[in-house]
Amino acid sequence: MTQPAYPQLETAFTRLYRYQHLAAIAGWDQAAMMPSKGNDARAAAMAELQVLMHHTLTDPALRGLFDAANSEALTPVQQASLREMRREWQNANLLPASLVEAKSLAGSRCEHAWRSQRKANDWQGFLQNFREVVKLSREEAQYLSDTTGVSRYDALMNLYEPGMNSAEVQRIFDDVKSWLPGLIRDTMQKQAGEQVLQAQGPFAIEAQRALGIEVMGVLGFDFDAGRLDVSVHPFCGGVAEDVRITTRYRDDDFVQSLMGIVHETGHARYEQGLPRELAHLPVGHARSMGIHESQSLSFEMQLGRNPAFLQLIAPLVKKHLGEQPAFDAANLGQLYSRVRPGYIRVDADELTYPAHVILRFEIERALIEGEIEAEDIPALWDEKMLAYLGVDTRGNYQNGCLQDIHWTDGSFGYFPSYTLGAMYAAQYFATIRQQYPDLDSRIATGDLAPVFDWLQSNIWQQASLWSTPELVRRATGESLNPAHFRAHLQARYLG
Amino acid sequence: MTQPAYPQLETAFTRLYRYQHLAAIAGWDQAAMMPSKGNDARAAAMAELQVLMHHTLTDPALRGLFDAANSEALTPVQQASLREMRREWQNANLLPASLVEAKSLAGSRCEHAWRSQRKANDWQGFLQNFREVVKLSREEAQYLSDTTGVSRYDALMNLYEPGMNSAEVQRIFDDVKSWLPGLIRDTMQKQAGEQVLQAQGPFAIEAQRALGIEVMGVLGFDFDAGRLDVSVHPFCGGVAEDVRITTRYRDDDFVQSLMGIVHETGHARYEQGLPRELAHLPVGHARSMGIHESQSLSFEMQLGRNPAFLQLIAPLVKKHLGEQPAFDAANLGQLYSRVRPGYIRVDADELTYPAHVILRFEIERALIEGEIEAEDIPALWDEKMLAYLGVDTRGNYQNGCLQDIHWTDGSFGYFPSYTLGAMYAAQYFATIRQQYPDLDSRIATGDLAPVFDWLQSNIWQQASLWSTPELVRRATGESLNPAHFRAHLQARYLG
Ligand SMILES: [Zn+2]
Ligand SMILES: [Zn+2]
Repeated sequence: MTQPAYPQLETAFTRLYRYQHLAAIAGWDQAAMMPSKGNDARAAAMAELQVLMHHTLTDPALRGLFDAANSEALTPVQQASLREMRREWQNANLLPASLVEAKSLAGSRCEHAWRSQRKANDWQGFLQNFREVVKLSREEAQYLSDTTGVSRYDALMNLYEPGMNSAEVQRIFDDVKSWLPGLIRDTMQKQAGEQVLQAQGPFAIEAQRALGIEVMGVLGFDFDAGRLDVSVHPFCGGVAEDVRITTRYRDDDFVQSLMGIVHETGHARYEQGLPRELAHLPVGHARSMGIHESQSLSFEMQLGRNPAFLQLIAPLVKKHLGEQPAFDAANLGQLYSRVRPGYIRVDADELTYPAHVILRFEIERALIEGEIEAEDIPALWDEKMLAYLGVDTRGNYQNGCLQDIHWTDGSFGYFPSYTLGAMYAAQYFATIRQQYPDLDSRIATGDLAPVFDWLQSNIWQQASLWSTPELVRRATGESLNPAHFRAHLQARYLG
Repeated sequence: MTQPAYPQLETAFTRLYRYQHLAAIAGWDQAAMMPSKGNDARAAAMAELQVLMHHTLTDPALRGLFDAANSEALTPVQQASLREMRREWQNANLLPASLVEAKSLAGSRCEHAWRSQRKANDWQGFLQNFREVVKLSREEAQYLSDTTGVSRYDALMNLYEPGMNSAEVQRIFDDVKSWLPGLIRDTMQKQAGEQVLQAQGPFAIEAQRALGIEVMGVLGFDFDAGRLDVSVHPFCGGVAEDVRITTRYRDDDFVQSLMGIVHETGHARYEQGLPRELAHLPVGHARSMGIHESQSLSFEMQLGRNPAFLQLIAPLVKKHLGEQPAFDAANLGQLYSRVRPGYIRVDADELTYPAHVILRFEIERALIEGEIEAEDIPALWDEKMLAYLGVDTRGNYQNGCLQDIHWTDGSFGYFPSYTLGAMYAAQYFATIRQQYPDLDSRIATGDLAPVFDWLQSNIWQQASLWSTPELVRRATGESLNPAHFRAHLQARYLG
């Protein structure tokens, strides 16, 4: 008598989940705790763990188990679980090991050289390494495309955003392009006449940290299941049972750090709110990068920069950083809604950010589909930055196409998730506001339960039980509808 | 053509070393960083890693490699490396998996119940579980004894202290017993007439931490290769490339925490000083528990409680904790050399500590060799505490044989390492003093190089290249000689 296959798959993926736990903690430690001389040994240990996880997922015995599990009687949750285990397994098994290794090497080489090439504005130098990264990423995309039947770019995008396709994304982004430049222009005109007070520093790091901790408390972060620490690049790491978020502090500015904490707390509450009984299985993990970002942006954009929320936390800012007029809620609202087109995506405000993302999406899609070559990027970049944001980037590679790390290691297909996340968040809040027409007055008085309860039951507890489109439909009653995003921006910036 | 075996063994043990790295960092995090709700997932992940490490060491292919490597041409370092790899391999393979599991279960059960039984002074209750731990530990000892040819207790002790035997330990401890009680009595008489000022708290935790960090700097701790954090039970963890030490602070006392940091810094510098090019192999790791303790006690006892060292750091104490007469070097010297026999080993002073260890050694040796049974322990305990320390423990199990965790999980054979470490440390310093008759005046002025250089070249850089007796002989010109320990105590307490 043969053992049922499904429980055996659960056993294998539970082992994998424990390895992932170790990788997450070691990775967090590397970024937040580890002294410099620990790096070589840590890198070797983490690489060994990657090999082990890859072996676990490429164990030849899994194929037979997946085949057999297809015909076993499974509950709906087990069926979803099987689908998600299969997705993770397929992603790990589609690519020949030689390609994975070659891409990893080419990405490391390109990234390493990029660090100095960016400073030197050396696009031609970068291109030497980058062509190889593009070539190998296209090969990867071809493998994935051959199996999944979607286009090459879509196949890469589905690694981060399963169930989304680029035709849909292009349709949505085309709509945004039709109204965003005008909205940016109108907003800048409106803000040109406004007085905004800059807060006077320095702001002691310890005081900023205490403020961040208190705001995390307001946002419902469970400190028995997570921590706040410091790292050069803020992130949300750790594991669902023990979420580690980080920020960085500057003593001459508290605005960015505070809202960064709010953002990462959104990621963290998603993780803390995932169903604990499924934590060891892929179906119990976050749905996608876009849905993850929809949580951080629900916290940062929908809640955090909302004047009602700033009214709620203004007294906390004053308590920790001292009294000054710049900390009045109205002025905080202006600080956190200032719109200024610029070169750098990660520094962009809420309104100009989507323009950066659309530009990247359009260029990387064309690049992976073979419609353009790597050397065509700067001209396209200049043209789109001018069209979408009115910014002149000619010859300025270091603040243009060399500005960040995403392409250097071949992570094509990720960019859309940022703006899809912002749109999902706007759509959630449109739904929440229908249920609670008095949402803002509740928020201002500290009653955040409508938001948390809705996210908890509609997103966090749903984990990966449904595809992304199905999750969003079940939560909001309609598929992704960018009209909510537009309405939100209109109301906030011109309302 | 077959591959040489030795390099294949190095490959396997390098993989093991990387897994150990992950285990060490996850373990440190668990004790120093992890919030409470992370514990279940962490425990599962660490157990999975233990299974993996055990599989790595019990891979049947290793036997053939060890056989083949015997006849390969190896350098002296490779020969030592092969010996240490074999030792680790044998220790992992000697015991049937069923016994390892049974002992682990019995130990957990006994330890869990002990937490409340100790509070309730419930020796009879403890005995129910403890008998099973003793029984399984004897079985373990028998397996080890059958293979190694040494007695049962010696086989257990050799897990911590390879190359040492209990006849030698008994000989040394008998000598100690002939002079220690008298020395304790004389010291107490002498100290009865002395005035000691207690420092007045509270001592801010941040100030204590800053003091600890500065003292670690004086002691040569490399902060680019390690950290100081906080945990309930102080320890030295992490990996040689990135050593994590911990302490705990009380705001009404700085004495224990400060000397605890000095102690752990001794462990840490051993790890930081191990030869980096051998870090991935057992031969590059610390020699034994006794030698490790000899480093922490070199720092704590030989250096840290030395009046010359206290003279050096008294200004630092005042700088961080404020001026008060109790912080004068002479008074610090009195605080750190106060002798008071008591019930609890871990709270014992330098002079009474060996009496606790000798008592444990004599009881656990007899227990494992089958000369006594578990129920005989209290009577022996009472008798020896009275004889060695003049302390009456009758009926006081919670501060007697139930006082600590060492026996509950079956870690028999470890106790001698503490006092052997203290003796090695005294012997090292006798050697160093011969080379540097002006050692104390150098220490008082901050020139600690004679100590660090000697330990670096004679102990740290030697890692596990030699057996413990050979290491000590090469370093000091003679085998373990407790006369140095006696002379050190005589000089410090009656000199
Ligand atoms: Zn984010
Ligand atoms: Zn120690």
